[in-house]
Amino acid sequence: MAEIVSFPDADRAVGLLVRSLRHGVLRLVLNDPPVNALSIALLEALVAELEKAASDADVRVVVIASTGNVFSAGHDLKEMTAHRADEDQGAAFFERSFRLCADLMLKIAHLPKPVIAEVDGLATAAGCQLVASCDLAICTDSSTFCTPGVNIGLFCSTPMVAVSRAAHRKQAMEMLLTGETIDASTAKDFGLVNRIVPKQYLAQVVAKYAAVIAGKSPLILKIGKEAFYQQLELPAEAAYDYAVRVMVENMLVRDAQEGIGAFLSKRKPEWKGE
Amino acid sequence: MAEIVSFPDADRAVGLLVRSLRHGVLRLVLNDPPVNALSIALLEALVAELEKAASDADVRVVVIASTGNVFSAGHDLKEMTAHRADEDQGAAFFERSFRLCADLMLKIAHLPKPVIAEVDGLATAAGCQLVASCDLAICTDSSTFCTPGVNIGLFCSTPMVAVSRAAHRKQAMEMLLTGETIDASTAKDFGLVNRIVPKQYLAQVVAKYAAVIAGKSPLILKIGKEAFYQQLELPAEAAYDYAVRVMVENMLVRDAQEGIGAFLSKRKPEWKGE
Amino acid sequence: MAEIVSFPDADRAVGLLVRSLRHGVLRLVLNDPPVNALSIALLEALVAELEKAASDADVRVVVIASTGNVFSAGHDLKEMTAHRADEDQGAAFFERSFRLCADLMLKIAHLPKPVIAEVDGLATAAGCQLVASCDLAICTDSSTFCTPGVNIGLFCSTPMVAVSRAAHRKQAMEMLLTGETIDASTAKDFGLVNRIVPKQYLAQVVAKYAAVIAGKSPLILKIGKEAFYQQLELPAEAAYDYAVRVMVENMLVRDAQEGIGAFLSKRKPEWKGE
Repeated sequence: MAEIVSFPDADRAVGLLVRSLRHGVLRLVLNDPPVNALSIALLEALVAELEKAASDADVRVVVIASTGNVFSAGHDLKEMTAHRADEDQGAAFFERSFRLCADLMLKIAHLPKPVIAEVDGLATAAGCQLVASCDLAICTDSSTFCTPGVNIGLFCSTPMVAVSRAAHRKQAMEMLLTGETIDASTAKDFGLVNRIVPKQYLAQVVAKYAAVIAGKSPLILKIGKEAFYQQLELPAEAAYDYAVRVMVENMLVRDAQEGIGAFLSKRKPEWKGE
Repeated sequence: MAEIVSFPDADRAVGLLVRSLRHGVLRLVLNDPPVNALSIALLEALVAELEKAASDADVRVVVIASTGNVFSAGHDLKEMTAHRADEDQGAAFFERSFRLCADLMLKIAHLPKPVIAEVDGLATAAGCQLVASCDLAICTDSSTFCTPGVNIGLFCSTPMVAVSRAAHRKQAMEMLLTGETIDASTAKDFGLVNRIVPKQYLAQVVAKYAAVIAGKSPLILKIGKEAFYQQLELPAEAAYDYAVRVMVENMLVRDAQEGIGAFLSKRKPEWKGE
Repeated sequence: MAEIVSFPDADRAVGLLVRSLRHGVLRLVLNDPPVNALSIALLEALVAELEKAASDADVRVVVIASTGNVFSAGHDLKEMTAHRADEDQGAAFFERSFRLCADLMLKIAHLPKPVIAEVDGLATAAGCQLVASCDLAICTDSSTFCTPGVNIGLFCSTPMVAVSRAAHRKQAMEMLLTGETIDASTAKDFGLVNRIVPKQYLAQVVAKYAAVIAGKSPLILKIGKEAFYQQLELPAEAAYDYAVRVMVENMLVRDAQEGIGAFLSKRKPEWKGE
């Protein structure tokens, strides 16, 4: 296990999205308290950071965290409501918001680097979707989750795409139909989060996960993460046809030769990322 | 949370399927003890009620409950066996029975209103399928579940459609291959039910869930429920394309304007259903 | 519940794969300690046994077990590494290995007889995939599971096909990205195993499951198992169209008439397998 890295950045945070990069871990902190709404500005900042991260060899893992007591309350309803005064009653702006948000979620899946949600506090609607869309999610024991759109006349139809793929359907349906809030333990039972930790250890535990993953070959993570989401969409036989090709290609890259060689001779591998 | 509604109807029940409607909650009670077999007559009664409910603005939520110690034992095997004397050895009748049962399950998913299974007792074969097919399921702690067709030479191949979509595949396979009965707690672990309650509170708890959901906008529930089952069948990108369109359309209906407006000004929304 | 059968065969085991057949239960014991690597020879032996089992009326259930402290460590990395000296750097051999392994997993799903993994010890990479691919899995409380390819530069892309279909995606992703080992209890939570038993009872409990299943009609098991994996790949409506046809055909076979007749007259059925 690699050293534990602490991230004091949030204390000095300026801007909607605070960025820090240490030891291969890009930490993106939602910083628009009190609710870290996913406004157009914040969504665009996240998309831009992920696009940069995709091709930045110094970034090996991405962590999405937040400041304050709310991880994220989802779309910025004030911003949206203001656009009801537009000529088209806001249709173009709503389309832009939901499309941008969906693109962010798909970008997380397509990013060739693992993304970990570090959740402390309430994650609602598109905020809950963001947690569900990350590859891994670790939360504090006081974190809570909900998809409450049904309470305000806006069913959480985009969040459901992520939530219903992370959890069983009856459990996803319960969240969506009742709009009620579930606690961290229920979220773990549902499959929405991987691990629950006491608040004082959250950053440490996430940093440990991130450091473990940052210690792998970036090329191999890229190959594997891409294969994961691709094969999930295929019938089993086609998934195997695809995965067999992926494995053969993986075996032929240098990091596989290095990794397997190191394993067989009981030494530490040195990744070249090729 | 809305007032708790009690449903004394089962006590006065007459007919195979007892219907009552209060405060927007349509309660359908399977009333053919001792096993509430899903005979053609009962299946047709359920389908007819759901068809009426689909277009009845007074119905906002449907609850499917039962009388006696068995929620439902599934298809009526005596009725089926009698048709072995038909000229075609029963083929047409079997086809009619299984098709009608499948249509019922699909109708539950397609109904623009949430359906809650209120389960007390044993749910087997198509009875278990019925529980798995409802949007939500709440059961007593003494309820049990199984797909025992394999024991009588009739593998539960239609129930498996619902059970294998609610639970993980190994757990579904265990039920199907062994035919053994699982308890309520295991059923919750598997994802077949949402909540377990002591028997004396079952009707109360279901009524609370139903009242909470009946308090939402019927139009928004319709939009969301339809989107849920549609997007589940799509690859992630297509699911997002679809869900983004749904969200934009949802934003433009009056109940979204009302709901979001009420939320922002901290008042209770008044749904118009449009 | 049928008598408990003990299998002392492993004690007398010779050969890579030890075969024994008793009371309809074909027991295949991986016997290449210390790690039971899935070499070409062992993979071919497993495929050959399953092919024979498919058409052997004496085989009603298959159990895959192992000798030693490791259930299986997956592909034989030494064998693979030796082929890096081939003219094509091993490409053809790697293709052959991964294809053969994928074919084994698909053969388990396509086998018209249930397959139970009896796991004691560590199951890693393709060894973990083998557990995930069996219809049912029962393990000792000291068994552990992982997909650690990421640690050696070879992401577990074929194992992920099976693991991500047995477990929720975030939990599968955690195993794949971290490469860390999970205990039996976590594996059960994830959906990878059906039941955990103390080591001294493993063979007994598996034998009980196998005997229960071997007591069903082989024809009905064949119909049901095939239907299970077929319908899983279909959208819900198509799955019901298919399952309704399967049910009608099932009703018309003799074992359904016998089984339902026996049930209605409260006697034990006598399966004819037709």
